[in-house]
Amino acid sequence: MAGNTFGQLFKISTFGESHGKAIGVIIDGCPSQLPIDMEFIQSELDKRRPGQSKITTQRKESDTVEILSGIFEGQSTGTPIALLIPNEDHRSKDYEHNKDVYRPSHADYTYDAKYGTRDHRGGGRSSARETAARVAAGAVAKLLLKHHGIEIFAHVSAVGKINAPNLDDLKIEELLQIREENIVRCADPATAKEMIECIDAIRKDGDTIGGKVSCVIRNCPPGLGDPVFDKLHADLGKAMLSINAVHGFEYGSGFSGSEMRGSEHNDIFLPASGAPRTLTNFSGGIQGGISNGMEINFTVAFKPVATIMHNQKTINAAGDAAEIKGKGRHDPCVVPRAVVIVEAMAALVLADHLLRNKTSRL
Amino acid sequence: MAGNTFGQLFKISTFGESHGKAIGVIIDGCPSQLPIDMEFIQSELDKRRPGQSKITTQRKESDTVEILSGIFEGQSTGTPIALLIPNEDHRSKDYEHNKDVYRPSHADYTYDAKYGTRDHRGGGRSSARETAARVAAGAVAKLLLKHHGIEIFAHVSAVGKINAPNLDDLKIEELLQIREENIVRCADPATAKEMIECIDAIRKDGDTIGGKVSCVIRNCPPGLGDPVFDKLHADLGKAMLSINAVHGFEYGSGFSGSEMRGSEHNDIFLPASGAPRTLTNFSGGIQGGISNGMEINFTVAFKPVATIMHNQKTINAAGDAAEIKGKGRHDPCVVPRAVVIVEAMAALVLADHLLRNKTSRL
Amino acid sequence: MAGNTFGQLFKISTFGESHGKAIGVIIDGCPSQLPIDMEFIQSELDKRRPGQSKITTQRKESDTVEILSGIFEGQSTGTPIALLIPNEDHRSKDYEHNKDVYRPSHADYTYDAKYGTRDHRGGGRSSARETAARVAAGAVAKLLLKHHGIEIFAHVSAVGKINAPNLDDLKIEELLQIREENIVRCADPATAKEMIECIDAIRKDGDTIGGKVSCVIRNCPPGLGDPVFDKLHADLGKAMLSINAVHGFEYGSGFSGSEMRGSEHNDIFLPASGAPRTLTNFSGGIQGGISNGMEINFTVAFKPVATIMHNQKTINAAGDAAEIKGKGRHDPCVVPRAVVIVEAMAALVLADHLLRNKTSRL
Amino acid sequence: MAGNTFGQLFKISTFGESHGKAIGVIIDGCPSQLPIDMEFIQSELDKRRPGQSKITTQRKESDTVEILSGIFEGQSTGTPIALLIPNEDHRSKDYEHNKDVYRPSHADYTYDAKYGTRDHRGGGRSSARETAARVAAGAVAKLLLKHHGIEIFAHVSAVGKINAPNLDDLKIEELLQIREENIVRCADPATAKEMIECIDAIRKDGDTIGGKVSCVIRNCPPGLGDPVFDKLHADLGKAMLSINAVHGFEYGSGFSGSEMRGSEHNDIFLPASGAPRTLTNFSGGIQGGISNGMEINFTVAFKPVATIMHNQKTINAAGDAAEIKGKGRHDPCVVPRAVVIVEAMAALVLADHLLRNKTSRL
Repeated sequence: MAGNTFGQLFKISTFGESHGKAIGVIIDGCPSQLPIDMEFIQSELDKRRPGQSKITTQRKESDTVEILSGIFEGQSTGTPIALLIPNEDHRSKDYEHNKDVYRPSHADYTYDAKYGTRDHRGGGRSSARETAARVAAGAVAKLLLKHHGIEIFAHVSAVGKINAPNLDDLKIEELLQIREENIVRCADPATAKEMIECIDAIRKDGDTIGGKVSCVIRNCPPGLGDPVFDKLHADLGKAMLSINAVHGFEYGSGFSGSEMRGSEHNDIFLPASGAPRTLTNFSGGIQGGISNGMEINFTVAFKPVATIMHNQKTINAAGDAAEIKGKGRHDPCVVPRAVVIVEAMAALVLADHLLRNKTSRL
Repeated sequence: MAGNTFGQLFKISTFGESHGKAIGVIIDGCPSQLPIDMEFIQSELDKRRPGQSKITTQRKESDTVEILSGIFEGQSTGTPIALLIPNEDHRSKDYEHNKDVYRPSHADYTYDAKYGTRDHRGGGRSSARETAARVAAGAVAKLLLKHHGIEIFAHVSAVGKINAPNLDDLKIEELLQIREENIVRCADPATAKEMIECIDAIRKDGDTIGGKVSCVIRNCPPGLGDPVFDKLHADLGKAMLSINAVHGFEYGSGFSGSEMRGSEHNDIFLPASGAPRTLTNFSGGIQGGISNGMEINFTVAFKPVATIMHNQKTINAAGDAAEIKGKGRHDPCVVPRAVVIVEAMAALVLADHLLRNKTSRL
Repeated sequence: MAGNTFGQLFKISTFGESHGKAIGVIIDGCPSQLPIDMEFIQSELDKRRPGQSKITTQRKESDTVEILSGIFEGQSTGTPIALLIPNEDHRSKDYEHNKDVYRPSHADYTYDAKYGTRDHRGGGRSSARETAARVAAGAVAKLLLKHHGIEIFAHVSAVGKINAPNLDDLKIEELLQIREENIVRCADPATAKEMIECIDAIRKDGDTIGGKVSCVIRNCPPGLGDPVFDKLHADLGKAMLSINAVHGFEYGSGFSGSEMRGSEHNDIFLPASGAPRTLTNFSGGIQGGISNGMEINFTVAFKPVATIMHNQKTINAAGDAAEIKGKGRHDPCVVPRAVVIVEAMAALVLADHLLRNKTSRL
Repeated sequence: MAGNTFGQLFKISTFGESHGKAIGVIIDGCPSQLPIDMEFIQSELDKRRPGQSKITTQRKESDTVEILSGIFEGQSTGTPIALLIPNEDHRSKDYEHNKDVYRPSHADYTYDAKYGTRDHRGGGRSSARETAARVAAGAVAKLLLKHHGIEIFAHVSAVGKINAPNLDDLKIEELLQIREENIVRCADPATAKEMIECIDAIRKDGDTIGGKVSCVIRNCPPGLGDPVFDKLHADLGKAMLSINAVHGFEYGSGFSGSEMRGSEHNDIFLPASGAPRTLTNFSGGIQGGISNGMEINFTVAFKPVATIMHNQKTINAAGDAAEIKGKGRHDPCVVPRAVVIVEAMAALVLADHLLRNKTSRL
């Protein structure tokens, strides 16, 4: 069954393979009269774009986004917004050697097992190239959220065993500025330096390394999320886990919360005239699956990229022993480019639940 | 928007509040001609039932399940299966004091914020009592999976900081037997003893403690999962995160995978005539969002139960300072009863994707 | 794939067989704080109830509706509303003779062909008894619409070749009063008399007759309907065609519109300060799939009931010749009881689109 | 809420406005390994293409379809198939005069009422140009159906009051050949001649005329359709009613069935070793919402096109009196081009239910 649609009311459908003519996305359900800032959408894509620094893949794609429908005189019309990103630098020949061989920890085998066929060029549909479409759609979602004052910020909180400190005291604009000043996209300059050195060394080894992206959402109004299944954090979790290479998701106290006692974990409400705040925020801004107005925060774990520059043993489609040569273009660490993908998916979830919540009361 | 339905083809819709007449579930999409073993369904519910041991809540519910439709002469008919579980021991008076007060880290405030009203008795719809309906539906899903030879097993892998050892070498039936021999439902007897002592001490303190549940799925055929959004692990993650008190999900190498290098993380395929196996299984049985035939494994982190036997400061609906008395019935640690809920949600995801995969090829 | 759910935001899932324990419905997505008038819901069911007059089936069912969840202190809470209607008078023995025989123009053969099994008692899931659940849910939808001032009225506009005159000049309350004064539920007394005589004669013949139900929706605001697929009239059409025995649907000018010229069919807008009106209403209140504020009107064609009191030739499950005896309880004409079903399905579509339209603009 | 997606398993999402850059469609859920005959897809589009004869609009569009994704080496891969049709001849200036004026019986007013804005050029999203995307997707669905031996045929059965005779005795290939030999696409040559003369006269009057399209589906296996809401004819009905200008749908005995008695309407099963046939087919090949293996047949009523070459009174966006000049390009009668749209939508419904039915039994 079709799995290329995400969201209920702010709904996206993506298409496209790594080495096809183009990738793209239809956004269905964006409210009308939203001003669409094309420069902003393009700037978001630029953050995900390959070849942007020495620590990313050297594939050259301008990732220039084109509007096909749904926008008229600079505003959304309420009809489907179709965004197209042509593929430019598809050196399909680089992948001829993968045609009949299953790359370890890639999706080559599983796509064959499921569909009996696959577009082997650059990983086809399983390539992370598909996430460019998500970033484009996520940028539109961000425009909707910005209109409602909701802010989203993610950064690289870990590369391998190097972890960034807690940055709760900074404002989003400060965090954003610091993050964009370094190529690893960590909002702590000292940690960023360490991370970049680490990735650079890994790259020279022909190897790859995992990492983490942490995200905060501020000014989210109380009331978003639809129990019992479409809890806000459950939809955020699914969104993050659907990103290539993600192996884990936690929000609020997360895994460390499982070691805590209720008496220390409970977030005490503080007396207030409007929406209450809590003394601590182990709940991560979500209680019972519904936002409570506090900062929403979560962390996403990425495994190391499977493409390495070493020769590896594997099998071919017949099940016989084979070898994969270490060559081609790849990212030594995926998290610097994943930051904007995490933000995009978070924005899509929030935009969807913002709309969904418009019908919860009479 | 309605969030009480889960699944696409094997689809469940649950209803019911903690202190209403009944809770229940409709299963729509169960294939016809599946033998329905009612004793098995009841035995699953018995594992989630309150009051089953000294380390669970003392609320008394027989949780007797009743069939209203969809089953004829012991088999599913292909029409909706409705299962009903009447509520028996709803001491609603116990909750009178909560009517206008928001319990810390519960969903009282957020339900009010979203809906402008709430059934305050026992947490209403936000109560974990709702998960009984999931267990009933999950039992039907397990019957479908069993028919296809797929096995699911979960157990308590951590209580607070007490962690169970890796149990990969045991068969499911062995694991199941050991698990059911202790009230904490950990498949390692020595760890189980330690966990029970821990929970008992916590209980006497009037406090609660978090924990983890780990789950394995064996004999899952390759091909399940629908990229790019409905990846098998993304749907498993959403399923788990939708369970009350869950704060984290990881599969395969999980969070520790973010610290690894590609050269150590890649799972090397071994030559084989049929479905290949891999030397290691950091992929957790899923590659590119599709099952690869290896064991699927994941871990779920539960925060400590918010209801504690201590008095706590809080606020009332007007935003003024108030106090919550420590009284009522509660679980000192949710994981022993959550084991079967985790299995149920996993079964629902697998059953759904098993059906979904029937149309992936011509 | 599961087909027992209807609607997107105001979403219902029905369950239950003719001779099972109960039939019922879950409504998911009803906004919170809607006052729920249980007497009104019951009164709606009474209009569909069997055995209400000499021209309906003599099966005795009180069709007493019971609330299981979702309503607290007389108001909807925003959580799933579960409504249950126990089956009382299920003389399953009456259907023993149908066990292995396919009744002509019933769903016996097709259910067997699809599912390989069926609950043969009273038609099982294919029985029109299922529509009681729709009427209960539709009554809740009507309460929501009433809150927004939207009125729905249906009546029997034809029995066989006897057609009611156009009744556009009457108010809904007048139409309703006249309709309920006769057992055939036609809003024109003279035609009603003729229809009753016709049905009574047909009944004495042991035969059945088809008919039509026409429906108007007044005070519907402009803007409801979601092109290009979920046009308001397309969803109304699907809703009506999903009712047992319906063979046709038309709205506005309908089939006769296919014989008209554009110059006579075009509805000319009249100058106005608010929502404009049109000189004629061949559009049936819907243009481009979106309500325009004029009266919505449509007509539904019902085939004659397949159960007749004559012996009929048929086949058994093995494909051999068999005979069906003419006995049991049945409706000689389904339309008098279908009036409230048509209204219920219309109300469900309108309630759904009313909610859907809340997110069409920024 | 988003209404631009159709189908559950064989799911399409369309996008694009009449005068935007392009229109297009994503097909998600097409099984892998289906050979994709691009010439066939193009030939289907050619049948809907404007400017193909003297009795269609003179807008010039080559409607050349381009594949963006989902097809590799001539076969579907199981991933989303994106098809693009660039707009070429968009004389947007022709519509400048409509910018602030509501054309009678068009969707100008309702789009404004719903979205507060609209792309007025050529009707924007409400233009029947959108149906080209449906035809492209429907052609892929037809390829899937052809693989399973299912045949679909539609033709113009009425123009105004000119009705074609019953053509049940002809084979699909014969019907198709006769139909394509005349520009009105009626499978009866004598009636076709009359229809063409009628349309030509209407065209010279600057007027338009309604009509009907009738469709048959042959070799459909028993078992397709998902009661109680997603009955096969209910989904067909919705599909047809979602086509621009459709005002009515009937299947089997249709509206005339409402005048019949049960004793004449019941389709008697004939003894048979395999799937049974019935003596008559008033059921239109569908019983209880599930196909019974007999020919499926239905008829669709189209209102006359609203664009006429006469001046018409109307209002502007402010509600003041205005006048519409009779100019521009238009179809005097929509049905000759609608034949392939009806077939496409029928194919989409059938393909969807063919896939859905793969999980109805264990």
